[in-house]
Amino acid sequence: MSLIVHKYGGTSMGSIERIKNVARRVAKWHRAGYQLVVVPSAMSGETNRLISLAKEIQDQPDERELDMLCCTGEQVSVALLAMALKNIGIDAVSFTGWQVPVKTDSAYTKARIESIDDARIRAEINAGKVVIVTGFQGIDSLGNPTTLGRGGSDTSAVAMAAALKAQECLIYTDVDGIYTTDPRVVPEARRMRVVSFEEMLEMASMGSKVLQIRSVEFAGKYRVPTRVLSSLTDPDMPLDEEKKQGTLITFEEDEHMEQAVVSGIAFNRDEAKIMVRGVSDKPGVAYQILGAVADANIDVDMIIQNQGTDGLTDFTFTVHRNDYQKTLNLIKNKVLVENNLTAKEVVGDANVCKVSIVGIGMRSHVGIASLMFKTLFEEGINIQMISTSEIKVSVIINDKYMELAVRALHRAFELDAAQS
Amino acid sequence: MSLIVHKYGGTSMGSIERIKNVARRVAKWHRAGYQLVVVPSAMSGETNRLISLAKEIQDQPDERELDMLCCTGEQVSVALLAMALKNIGIDAVSFTGWQVPVKTDSAYTKARIESIDDARIRAEINAGKVVIVTGFQGIDSLGNPTTLGRGGSDTSAVAMAAALKAQECLIYTDVDGIYTTDPRVVPEARRMRVVSFEEMLEMASMGSKVLQIRSVEFAGKYRVPTRVLSSLTDPDMPLDEEKKQGTLITFEEDEHMEQAVVSGIAFNRDEAKIMVRGVSDKPGVAYQILGAVADANIDVDMIIQNQGTDGLTDFTFTVHRNDYQKTLNLIKNKVLVENNLTAKEVVGDANVCKVSIVGIGMRSHVGIASLMFKTLFEEGINIQMISTSEIKVSVIINDKYMELAVRALHRAFELDAAQS
Repeated sequence: MSLIVHKYGGTSMGSIERIKNVARRVAKWHRAGYQLVVVPSAMSGETNRLISLAKEIQDQPDERELDMLCCTGEQVSVALLAMALKNIGIDAVSFTGWQVPVKTDSAYTKARIESIDDARIRAEINAGKVVIVTGFQGIDSLGNPTTLGRGGSDTSAVAMAAALKAQECLIYTDVDGIYTTDPRVVPEARRMRVVSFEEMLEMASMGSKVLQIRSVEFAGKYRVPTRVLSSLTDPDMPLDEEKKQGTLITFEEDEHMEQAVVSGIAFNRDEAKIMVRGVSDKPGVAYQILGAVADANIDVDMIIQNQGTDGLTDFTFTVHRNDYQKTLNLIKNKVLVENNLTAKEVVGDANVCKVSIVGIGMRSHVGIASLMFKTLFEEGINIQMISTSEIKVSVIINDKYMELAVRALHRAFELDAAQS
Repeated sequence: MSLIVHKYGGTSMGSIERIKNVARRVAKWHRAGYQLVVVPSAMSGETNRLISLAKEIQDQPDERELDMLCCTGEQVSVALLAMALKNIGIDAVSFTGWQVPVKTDSAYTKARIESIDDARIRAEINAGKVVIVTGFQGIDSLGNPTTLGRGGSDTSAVAMAAALKAQECLIYTDVDGIYTTDPRVVPEARRMRVVSFEEMLEMASMGSKVLQIRSVEFAGKYRVPTRVLSSLTDPDMPLDEEKKQGTLITFEEDEHMEQAVVSGIAFNRDEAKIMVRGVSDKPGVAYQILGAVADANIDVDMIIQNQGTDGLTDFTFTVHRNDYQKTLNLIKNKVLVENNLTAKEVVGDANVCKVSIVGIGMRSHVGIASLMFKTLFEEGINIQMISTSEIKVSVIINDKYMELAVRALHRAFELDAAQS
């Protein structure tokens, strides 16, 4: 019999009525002959409620105790869902992370899964039960509860699917799939039926916040077919129809034939640009500048270095907009001074954004980048920086053009709904 | 160093402000050099909230899942209290029942503690930490969370004190001790400074609902000195003063010298009386009548059998008032018929109450019962049934005289506040 993992987000578990709907949906799969492991999140708002209780006590709550506190939210969810299933005649049993056990490291509030023991779950599945396991949490080698950080239930579900060699991991959430770009910016944005793991990684890291990036990495590492779909549809929808819902993240190139060369347009407005112009072009400059930025716990995104003809070099990079002023001061007042570097000027721009085209298809297609540049040129948008990877081309532009650029590119790469 | 167990009820843990007060009180003891294990209940209202969520899903919630659900309430409390202690500079660590572990049987929702492993707690205490352990719960041999039933945190605390051979178990609650009788009935009721274990058992089973009866049994079995006191006093009260608060339940006869012969007056209005008059006086009658009542899951309290001179006997017993009609019907329509018994009449009275005098001192004092009967006679109160044990005399009287009887007895046995 095929084993399927279902994951339900906090909104899907947000009320007794919704929990009953989740139970009806799970029951439908179970009655159709599937073995099921279900990973629910805490009821929406619960984790925030617990964290604010903690913050009323300690400004910086002790992290071990915070995990002890927060992991109760999912425990409530699994017990209620088990009851809801039993109430409609489906035998079910709930487990916490420590019962499975889901073993993690001891990095409280952001632990990483090390192993999942499948014996206890498999025994209950083989006894015909639906098994419900807490998301978001595990137990460390000291026997303390740990949590995986925000969105960790996605990772729990995918890891569970990997450990159980599940046929598919279904992530039920409050959106109905992954779109070619954000439909709030481009109303014609189209739901992708299939997206490759690599594309999903690029989309997720660019701010398509449907799936936690770590869950996508997990899915990739263990090649877990993972589907993102809506929990807001009719729970009694015919199974054949439900199986076509959402977006499947896949690892098989040939499932991808039907896809366009470019799969989606990602964007991010939280960018700021720093330019260090006219530095001596000698070994170690990149390290001297960026090492100090990293030491200050500032994340750097795009990095470009241009060699000049006069023995000088221009060094440009982007940081999160919140870190803009701090980074500028750091470079001017500390990095240049301490490393005895001279620069013609250190300037920046906090009003930039990043727009990227993503697509596994572009690997084998020339001319993709140039279509992107042509499109932006035709809209009169100046490109400030360019960065490329195998399946992505990103540009930094003035942020007032962001929506215009995304819409134009969406149209140029024929991603509009009319094409699906 | 002396080890002390503190237990705090749901009201004491009912808000962030109150949790901070608990932390201040615990810190005071810790700074005075005591080793401390603290057992808090769930925040007031939390267990009821969880149970009503469950009942919205299942009329009769699955008991294993109900325990999985409800044991989260205490887990939240221990984490928050640990944070509150750390916030004022006291090193603390929280543990759940399964972490200790507190091993119980598998009677979900009313499990019984089988053993407590003290190794992990002792290691943390020896490292100088305050250890906070969830009340109300444990883990069974299948590795499932269990709960001990309502009021179970008292039992957890006393059991913890027994396992750790604590010097004293302090039960902080919303009353300031055990009284000679209910102050709502007798305003002159006096707080007892010391009460014997046996007296406490009689008082608790009579409805003095300060401590769960099982926790008193546990205290008795392991001779754990247990003190009931208020958590509503100033948390910064000097330690010498705090040590004299409340009521100490003791196992040492000589600590009791100062006490009156009668320690307290207990009463219970939820009684109903059934009389089976004129049954053949032959072996097996008591069993035939009461066996059937017990089989119907009806609890019987007092039982009196009087032999007549005519070869017949009168058989009288009391049940909970809610079971009155059911019991009467059972005796009339089933027990007599099926056992081929004849009775002159089966009658009852649902308007009775039980009033008891309790005191370990009465063991060695004659005339105690007769002072009770004289007092009731002087008030014109007719006694319907009498039952005695070594440290208790109970009477059944018309319930309209209950308050009058309690006040008169309280005065007659010199329990009024003026005597303390």
